Amino acid sequence: MFKLHPSLQKKDYICDLDLCTVLFEDNQNYPWIFLVPRLENIKSMRDLTHEQRLKLMTEIEKAETVMANLFHPTQTNVAMIGNMTPQLHVHIICRFEGDPAWPGTVWSEKAVPYSPQEKENTILKIKQALKGEVNV
Amino acid sequence: MFKLHPSLQKKDYICDLDLCTVLFEDNQNYPWIFLVPRLENIKSMRDLTHEQRLKLMTEIEKAETVMANLFHPTQTNVAMIGNMTPQLHVHIICRFEGDPAWPGTVWSEKAVPYSPQEKENTILKIKQALKGEVNV
Repeated sequence: MFKLHPSLQKKDYICDLDLCTVLFEDNQNYPWIFLVPRLENIKSMRDLTHEQRLKLMTEIEKAETVMANLFHPTQTNVAMIGNMTPQLHVHIICRFEGDPAWPGTVWSEKAVPYSPQEKENTILKIKQALKGEVNV
Repeated sequence: MFKLHPSLQKKDYICDLDLCTVLFEDNQNYPWIFLVPRLENIKSMRDLTHEQRLKLMTEIEKAETVMANLFHPTQTNVAMIGNMTPQLHVHIICRFEGDPAWPGTVWSEKAVPYSPQEKENTILKIKQALKGEVNV
């Protein structure tokens, strides 16, 4: 049975796509989401079948497009790391020239949480765009 | 016309796959390669067509499998960053519990170069496996 890793359970839920659950990173410095395939015992992409990989790539494409259209980043970072959280989760992170970690990577940065209202609004905006309820 | 970004031109060449050129990172701490699609003006995955993305995912799958079978890592990190080098290149990095950056990410680490002989042997080993000349 699919179950989120404890460290992913702590993230805010955005919505489900066909294959992946989409989660939110509470860091106002970077619009940042995760795609987590709802499959059992998937430590890394190597545990996916070829068809699951292609489906994942299709959902990454959708999510990248939505995030880019909403936030207009300089660059989008897409990464599967999983050293600390060995359940496959794809980071999709909007990066901006001059953001606190630019041009480095963000994984050693301390998070700056959103205000509760900002967080709710941002999650809603991403959810509506991912679900096609609002065109972006 | 496809041309490698100057910072990718400095990397050692391994071989060409159908879509991507495969390059080598000279850092003996981490078996680490790059896949670079041989396409013009591709800053990030967002510049690929859907079909090119699926082809890229297929080549990532092949490269991950080869690297895992050759080096038996604890985890494989797969990432598209491109903040400093805005030409799409996919990092495929073998990570080991207890490696110098473990469990953090490797991008702020200083590289420890291979000896010339080790480098040549490692590149040859990866090339032969990717080209199917040696089964791994």
